Amino acid sequence: MTNASPSPPVVTFLSDYGHSDEFVGVCHGVIARRCPTARVIDVTHVVPSHDVRAGAILLRAALPYLPSGVHLAVVDPGVSAAGPYARRAVALSTATEGHVLVGPDNGLLMPAAERLGGVVEAVDIGESPECLQPVSRTFHGRDIFAPVAAALAAGEPLAAVGEAIDPGQLRRMGIPTAHIAEGALTAHVLRSDTFGNLILNAANEQLLEIGAQLGDALSVAHAGTRHTAAYAATFADVTPGELLIYEDAQQMVSLAVNRGSAAKLLGAEQDDELVIRPA
Amino acid sequence: MTNASPSPPVVTFLSDYGHSDEFVGVCHGVIARRCPTARVIDVTHVVPSHDVRAGAILLRAALPYLPSGVHLAVVDPGVSAAGPYARRAVALSTATEGHVLVGPDNGLLMPAAERLGGVVEAVDIGESPECLQPVSRTFHGRDIFAPVAAALAAGEPLAAVGEAIDPGQLRRMGIPTAHIAEGALTAHVLRSDTFGNLILNAANEQLLEIGAQLGDALSVAHAGTRHTAAYAATFADVTPGELLIYEDAQQMVSLAVNRGSAAKLLGAEQDDELVIRPA
Amino acid sequence: MTNASPSPPVVTFLSDYGHSDEFVGVCHGVIARRCPTARVIDVTHVVPSHDVRAGAILLRAALPYLPSGVHLAVVDPGVSAAGPYARRAVALSTATEGHVLVGPDNGLLMPAAERLGGVVEAVDIGESPECLQPVSRTFHGRDIFAPVAAALAAGEPLAAVGEAIDPGQLRRMGIPTAHIAEGALTAHVLRSDTFGNLILNAANEQLLEIGAQLGDALSVAHAGTRHTAAYAATFADVTPGELLIYEDAQQMVSLAVNRGSAAKLLGAEQDDELVIRPA
Repeated sequence: MTNASPSPPVVTFLSDYGHSDEFVGVCHGVIARRCPTARVIDVTHVVPSHDVRAGAILLRAALPYLPSGVHLAVVDPGVSAAGPYARRAVALSTATEGHVLVGPDNGLLMPAAERLGGVVEAVDIGESPECLQPVSRTFHGRDIFAPVAAALAAGEPLAAVGEAIDPGQLRRMGIPTAHIAEGALTAHVLRSDTFGNLILNAANEQLLEIGAQLGDALSVAHAGTRHTAAYAATFADVTPGELLIYEDAQQMVSLAVNRGSAAKLLGAEQDDELVIRPA
Repeated sequence: MTNASPSPPVVTFLSDYGHSDEFVGVCHGVIARRCPTARVIDVTHVVPSHDVRAGAILLRAALPYLPSGVHLAVVDPGVSAAGPYARRAVALSTATEGHVLVGPDNGLLMPAAERLGGVVEAVDIGESPECLQPVSRTFHGRDIFAPVAAALAAGEPLAAVGEAIDPGQLRRMGIPTAHIAEGALTAHVLRSDTFGNLILNAANEQLLEIGAQLGDALSVAHAGTRHTAAYAATFADVTPGELLIYEDAQQMVSLAVNRGSAAKLLGAEQDDELVIRPA
Repeated sequence: MTNASPSPPVVTFLSDYGHSDEFVGVCHGVIARRCPTARVIDVTHVVPSHDVRAGAILLRAALPYLPSGVHLAVVDPGVSAAGPYARRAVALSTATEGHVLVGPDNGLLMPAAERLGGVVEAVDIGESPECLQPVSRTFHGRDIFAPVAAALAAGEPLAAVGEAIDPGQLRRMGIPTAHIAEGALTAHVLRSDTFGNLILNAANEQLLEIGAQLGDALSVAHAGTRHTAAYAATFADVTPGELLIYEDAQQMVSLAVNRGSAAKLLGAEQDDELVIRPA
């Protein structure tokens, strides 16, 4: 167990390709051809199909646990669109040194870029000299994104793999932001999972900021209705059927019903606003 | 992001083992024991179970995107057969330097070998000194193929891992070949996918050779019936229910019905012959 | 294909995380941050959910095929339990040099540790300086086990990553042991697979020790009933509906019914005792 050799360059890879095809493996092959020493870390390939927003949230959430390197992400419902509907392919450097993002310009990369301090430099890689020719209409992961990510991992500067574009023109993702005002936390539903738990865009420490403590009863206002939820450590701390608020593994806040569905109880959907305050 | 260290040896790995067992992981372990520096690239492990032909086509299609190295492939319905039904285990070098193929002698490796210029040297590895002892009856991936692939990646010559055999005696796979005569392209069905799309053995450039251009109507003769298909870039270019011919991500030709099944419309099956010409 | 560089440190990784979430990928990221040169080998992540015993048996079975290094294993139904139900998080060195085990102290690691000659040194890593802060309640793989495994792979001694504990106090797993007495082999059912095959805890060579030879009829006593089974090489050696005993790919003994279910025929369950002798 020695650790003498220098750190290999890293490409992290997130997509909605799934594990039922050879897509992920072929992209690994393309990366290895261009940058044989690159270490590829598969973050996940089970982002819900074509769900750019879910991919963006996952990438942002995983980022603090990933090494510096090139972060390749492909969730790309517009891959084969032509003309005005076509999205650009981009590579971005960020304010946090050592991190580069590669993927479609459809908002997927932006929450991660913001967590890294914002985009410093952006290039359009759709016509990159690194692209595999001919570029297919449907598999840009293989033909554009993977080879460009590998070239960057091999040390190519951003300017060598694409044409400079204005970072201000990148397509952003409209993910609402939680905020505190007058002792109340206004949060929003990022998504509901298969159990009907509502994942919110608020950090657990924002609950502490409004004075909530574990065991407290909190008031949750949604769509004109007021609910009471227990601020609990685990589901087992409340009785079956009871609403609870808890800190998930991302230090974010979720709403759940023990052995039930918070999504159903509240009738809440993505982006719905919730106002939480001590009861 | 430096790239100073030499390229590690590569083992690419394709199988029908799936992801619901430890088979793939155990083979990775075996490879790492014999060649600790090897980089293993999983091409895919979801080849349809025991479908040697599908595996052969996938391996050949992935090859242009893989780095040079040892290509380990295991789709092996005859693994536990004895006597005259037993298949040999083989390793093959090809005319393209730097590529070696390892797997069962059931045709799986041959289309890839042909794409690499043909087999130059072949050895039977069933009794290789690299095999793990005792060799199990059912898991030759672990006991024969993976350790031999790793030994080759570690630099062993082919002659050291098996007994020389006549490349002419290797079992070939009868995949028909598309050809052009008198302005018509004769192609065959390689397989139909879950959507009923028919994947053909013709390259898109063969359509161009017979004078077809995007937007043209083409005549498709099959089993005594003549159909008309639009040569289109995407499904959206034809009306629902209409037959189209398009270039897939492998630069090959496929037949499809927008929101329907080309396999059903034509009643076509694997190896069926189709004659395509300008309408 | 050169092999000049030194062997990279290895972390093998087994869990019940599955492939439908980002859990495995995030742990890979955490390992790469702490030990950038570590080679991570995924043994399997499809251990049946929360089945500590199945994980323990799989880990023990895979071990002979894994390189030396740090073996990270997480099957952890008690992860979020508090107080007296909480399990410790531990790292263990074994009598076989070069192998370290990291995981929950719920028995998961012990059969593997015994195969490696037994535990030599054990530390509680629940408060390790290597833990990611804050440690979440539910994702100890990411926050405790992965970073400690990576630190050990990077060369940290066991004493640096936790507080010494008495190896005698580690929680063991009650897996029964097969034994031979008076010409009979007493074995037990480890588990039945989806086909109703009964996987026993006896090695094939123990059958040879009681004088059985391929083709023999063997007597199998279970719960007061006596069955006759053919000691066969493959299922095809017996007629449909007939009971057989065979050597599986782990050189262990299994009971099966050709085109039927041995579990149903015998009415046997996990841990049931079977006494096998020549008929």
